[in-house]
Order: sequence, then C-alpha cells, then structure tokens
Amino acid sequence: MLHLNKGAEKRLRAGHHWIYNNEVDNQKSPLKGFVPGSVVNAVDFRGKGVGSFMINPHALICGRMISRQQDRDLTSSLIKNRLKQALALRDMCFDAPCYRWVYGDSDGLSGLVVDRFHDILTVQVSTAGMERQLEVILDHLQRLVQPTGILLKNDGKMRTAEGLDTYVRVAAGQVPEQVELTENGVRFLAPLMTGQKTGWFYDHRPNRALAAQYARGKTVLDVFSYLGGWGLTCAMNGATSVTCADVSELALEGVMRNADLNGCADRVQTRLGDAFDTLDQLRLEKQRFDVVIVDPPAFIARRKDIEAGERAYQKLNDMAMKLVNPGGLLVSASCSMHLENDRLRDMIRASARSLDRHALILAEGGQGADHPVLPAVKETRYIKAIFAQISPGL
Amino acid sequence: MLHLNKGAEKRLRAGHHWIYNNEVDNQKSPLKGFVPGSVVNAVDFRGKGVGSFMINPHALICGRMISRQQDRDLTSSLIKNRLKQALALRDMCFDAPCYRWVYGDSDGLSGLVVDRFHDILTVQVSTAGMERQLEVILDHLQRLVQPTGILLKNDGKMRTAEGLDTYVRVAAGQVPEQVELTENGVRFLAPLMTGQKTGWFYDHRPNRALAAQYARGKTVLDVFSYLGGWGLTCAMNGATSVTCADVSELALEGVMRNADLNGCADRVQTRLGDAFDTLDQLRLEKQRFDVVIVDPPAFIARRKDIEAGERAYQKLNDMAMKLVNPGGLLVSASCSMHLENDRLRDMIRASARSLDRHALILAEGGQGADHPVLPAVKETRYIKAIFAQISPGL
Repeated sequence: MLHLNKGAEKRLRAGHHWIYNNEVDNQKSPLKGFVPGSVVNAVDFRGKGVGSFMINPHALICGRMISRQQDRDLTSSLIKNRLKQALALRDMCFDAPCYRWVYGDSDGLSGLVVDRFHDILTVQVSTAGMERQLEVILDHLQRLVQPTGILLKNDGKMRTAEGLDTYVRVAAGQVPEQVELTENGVRFLAPLMTGQKTGWFYDHRPNRALAAQYARGKTVLDVFSYLGGWGLTCAMNGATSVTCADVSELALEGVMRNADLNGCADRVQTRLGDAFDTLDQLRLEKQRFDVVIVDPPAFIARRKDIEAGERAYQKLNDMAMKLVNPGGLLVSASCSMHLENDRLRDMIRASARSLDRHALILAEGGQGADHPVLPAVKETRYIKAIFAQISPGL
Repeated sequence: MLHLNKGAEKRLRAGHHWIYNNEVDNQKSPLKGFVPGSVVNAVDFRGKGVGSFMINPHALICGRMISRQQDRDLTSSLIKNRLKQALALRDMCFDAPCYRWVYGDSDGLSGLVVDRFHDILTVQVSTAGMERQLEVILDHLQRLVQPTGILLKNDGKMRTAEGLDTYVRVAAGQVPEQVELTENGVRFLAPLMTGQKTGWFYDHRPNRALAAQYARGKTVLDVFSYLGGWGLTCAMNGATSVTCADVSELALEGVMRNADLNGCADRVQTRLGDAFDTLDQLRLEKQRFDVVIVDPPAFIARRKDIEAGERAYQKLNDMAMKLVNPGGLLVSASCSMHLENDRLRDMIRASARSLDRHALILAEGGQGADHPVLPAVKETRYIKAIFAQISPGL
C-alpha cells in the first residue's frame, strides 16, 4: 500500500491521475520497496483509499491511476474493456479505421499509445506498468481488429526515465516501410520506421479539415509541412496551388509521393529549407498566399522553455502574417502543451499590431476526438490552431 | 481633439477599440464639449495621434475607434467599404445568405449589428455615432444586397445608456412576422419582432453542426431549445428522437413549426417548463439520452454576477450530466463573455467527479465566423461549447 502525504490526495480526488514522487509518505511506505510496474492501492494520510495505481519508484511520476477503486489490477479483462471502449469512441467519430486508438490516461491506459493505420498498428509503451502487460496488450489488439502488422515503437525518451530500454521492432505480422492512411478523405503514405514520432500526426485532423474549407480556389503555403497533412488536404479541396515547405528532404519526398497518390501533384510544389529562412526568402521574392499555415514542432518542450519558445512563436507568426494576401487566412498552429490558447491569440494580436493589420479570428480549434482531453489532466491537452483573417489595418 | 490621460493610449495601441470616460484628460478636452456621435481625433498625453473615434460624452465607453489614422470620418464610402468587406467574409464562409453580416467592432463598425435572413435584414444600432449615419447605412445595405425588407431592432439596453430612444420599426420594404433562414443546411422560421434578441442566434452555428455529427442514430435532449436550432439540426442528421425543452410556449410552437418545415416532426417532441425543473423531472422519470445539449442564456451578464452565475452553470452541468447514457455526449454551451473556457472545462471536471463519471472532452468550439473575434477586444469573444463523452468512472 502506498501512503500519500497530507494534501496529495486533493489533486487526485479532483480528477488527476498521477502521483509525484514527492507526494509519497516515505516513512510509512518507502518507494524503494515497490517493484517497478506493480499495481498497488494508494491511501491518503487518513488511510482512506484514493484508487489503484501502477508504481514506478524510479520515476518522477511514480504512480499512475488504473482505477479510483481499491484492489484493482491491470488485468487482461480490464485492458480488454478499455481497449474496446476506446475503439468504440473512435469508430463513432471517424469513417476510416485510421486514428489514435489509445491515448494513454484519457483512455484509462496510462503509458500506452496505439495508432491505427487501417490494418497496421503502432504501439508505444512508456511506463514500467504497461511494459509488464505488453504481451496481454498485443494479444488483445490482435483479437480486436486482426491487424496484419504491429510495430512496437518503443524509442521515446520517457522510457529511459522509467528505466526501460529503447527499441523499435515488429511485434507481429508484417509492417511495410510505408503505411497508408486516410484522413479527412485524403490518402497519405507515412513512413513508420523512419518518420517523425509515430510516423503521422492525427492530432490536427479537425483543423486540417477546417483549413481546407477555406482553401477552395486559393493559393496555400504549408510551412513545417512534414508529409503534406495540411497542404494536400487543401489541394484535394479545391486549392489552386499549394506550396509545402519543410527542412527535411525525406518529408518533401513524402509530400510529392502523397500528391501523386491523390492525383494532385500538378498543383503542389515543395520548398526545402529552414522554415524561418524560407519565410524570409518568400517575402523577399514578394510571394504572397491566400492561406498561410504554420504548424511548427513544439517550441516549448518544458516549462523553462516558455520564454524562448514564445519568442519563437511570435517571430514565426510575424513572418507568416507578412505573406498573407489582403483578406487571406493565417492558420497558426501549436502543439506545445505549455503554450496557452490565450497566449497564442495574443501573438496574433501582437503580429497584427506590429504590421498594422486588422486580424479577425474566425475559429479556434483543438485536438481531434481521438486525442480526447481529460479535463482534470491538463497535460492531455496540447493542440491548438487559430484561424485568422488578415486585412489591412483600419 | 480628444486628449487621453497618460497610459490610456497603451490599450488602444495594443489593439483595443474603446476609450473609457475615465481615460480622457478633462482639463485639456472636457468630454462635455463634444457632440454625441461626432467623430474626432484622439491623441495621447504627448499629443501623438491614436486614431479617429466616435464620441459619446454620456457613455461609459465614450470613444469607439473608426480608424487608427487621424482625420478619418464615418463617411459614406468608409461605411460602404466596411459593409462590403464584411459581406465578402461571410460569403466566403457560408453557402446561404443567412448570417450576421456586421458584427460591430470586429467589422470596423462599432455599434452596428446587421443580421441577414436571405432577403430580410435586421439592423441594430447601439451608439450615437452610428445613429447619426443610419440613413447612409440603410442606403448601402439596400444597394449591396437589395433586401425585400429591413427591420430596425433598436430596443437594446445599450441605447438608453447612449441617450438614444428605443423602438422597433420596419425601415424599408416589408418584413413578415416569420422569416426563413438556412443554417447548416436546415431550414428555420424565426419571429423577428416577437423573438428573443434579434430573433435568431447564428453564433453557435459550427457547434450545432458538430453536435449533429454525433447525433446519427441517437436520442437527443436539447435544453433551452428556443426554436430548435440544436435539436432540429440533430434530427435532420439522423437522430432517432429529439426532445426540445424550453420555458417559452411560443418557442416550442416555433420548434414544431420548424420540425414540420423540415419534415422531421415525427421524431421531435417538446417539453415545456423551467429548465432546471425539467432536468429534475426527466431524472425522476429515469429518462436518459445519448446526447444532452444545454445552451442556457447568459447566466453572467456582468462581472459582479460571476460567482452566482458560475454556480448556476455548475448546477446545470451536474443535472445535465446525470441524464447522459453511458458513453453518450454532453454538449455544454455558454454565451457568457465572463465565463472563461478554462472555467467551463473545469465545471465538466467537477460534475464528472461529483457523479463519479469519466468525462472526455472530444472538442471545444467557439463562435461562428460571422461573429469574428478581435484578439485585442476580449468583449468580442463570448461563445463556447464543450463536447464531452460521459462514461462510468474508472
């Protein structure tokens, strides 16, 4: 049994799922005494139960909730039920079986992420507790949807912090170099082994759909394009010309492969180079676009990066706004959990003021329904996108 | 010329459009000396221009920006250009000519609101400055879209504060008792003269569309339904049964008229009574729904109402969540500018905890693109809707 310090129960009872290692009463229940990955009851300072938790004495987040009831374990049937419930939500939300099937804590499976690309699955395990049940998880995944291949992408940084080794390996069946997926009705090939993170980012799906709604008959610039998720969705929804910019040659090869796959390569160009350099060059070339999309990698990985990260976002938005035709649209995206919506909105304001533009926010979007947010766990909420019409100043 | 106190220029230069009466240097430029509705230059304490403003010495907000340049007036051509620009944005965003055409400050026309219902327009003027240009405005509205009728709905509270009289009158052509509009492909009749506010609320359009996406094959409860904006959009997108609840008999008559208009009356019921009473009765009757929508009137009209208003929102969300079938959806809407997104999200958290539910936020929505937000003027941003899947607690 894990004894919590006085007060540590409050955040948990308010809905959070995690116990930090400084919240444990090490006198009554020395963390060292727990086997990494074991499941134990946690009790508050009065001895009252707060739930069943996976424990890892070596991690900063030393407890991860499985259930608010005591005496629950990460059993095969619990895992199966949670996988099924998560699957039912995704199947309700999406037409094609292409989505994040399991999103960790939100789906009651802390430390597990599963992405689905039709018949191929990728699995990421980031905690010792989930690692212990890996075979059971793989077994249920296979029974529930009969995938033709499962890739274990266990190369995340968090594994090291949890004392787990890192590796990428095919866990079942065959996994091709490129897998196909469908998002918003557009087809994409994604390289699971060599691509960024899990190979594809489903999280901006609703925002890509919304950007595409504004793209009919328009010219589009997609900065940090990766494989063309935004740009090609626009191209397939009536954009007349789409420029995808990325620093990775592999990514831009992927863009053109995906453009070919959808038969829209005639209206897609690529531009190789650092995003800030590219934006600056385009400005000097006097190129302007009706829709400019910037979806950078997280500039703020940790709280201490906030100041520098916000400066980078501001600079990016300044530079992007300069390239928007009068009356056109700036789509400013962020995947930094530490960047608040209000802050991003204020950057649009600041860019508009410094460039003397009239900026109108037409919509603000968050992450797709396959990345559902736990309202008590703000760490589960990270995606934002602001859609702003940019006109000359009043 | 209007002289501002030291520091008052900062908010304006940062993007805001309003001058408060305590920000004016009454020594250098006594407010009393200005004609209500006149347009003047404002300068900061150093005498440097901050723009051209409509002035009303009797109002708390005594200055409303027309332009960031000096020496601009609310001329016919300025009005025409802003009306055209606003129209172009709406026509880009919507298929049918049914929308808020002018949304005050956001469209550079502070104090003017124009709603369009195909060939019928409603106009609301809330400031002395706009009132002076009313004939010019009406003239341009007629030339730009040739409406068959224009209703002046000048009965808002703000007019009294501006020293204007209140009235409702037909300003041009014919205005029928009920006007038809199309929203998200669904037809509605709205009573412009006797209905709430402008007769119809276009502001939740994208959220109604999203709710309807989740309604296929589902049972739906629409609380504070008014004329069925949410419920009938669900009914027309595959909901098997929709219950619209409202305290107004006139509103519920409107619901059934609109259901008939769309041929979906066979799957629509109404329920008359106070919303809280109705939710309580439904609970006692053990009625449960797959989708429960609560879109109350603003419980927080002014800052001092925040505490009581938040209690009311919390109670409403508690009661609504109880009626959601396991795995179903709660759509929690708010039109209170003073209720922050974070607060509403936290209410979903709190309801879920007190009822031992697992709540997952699938999406968060804001106001439609015909109510565009000025990032510097937080008063322009007020609509929010949270879409949460409600399951049994972990």
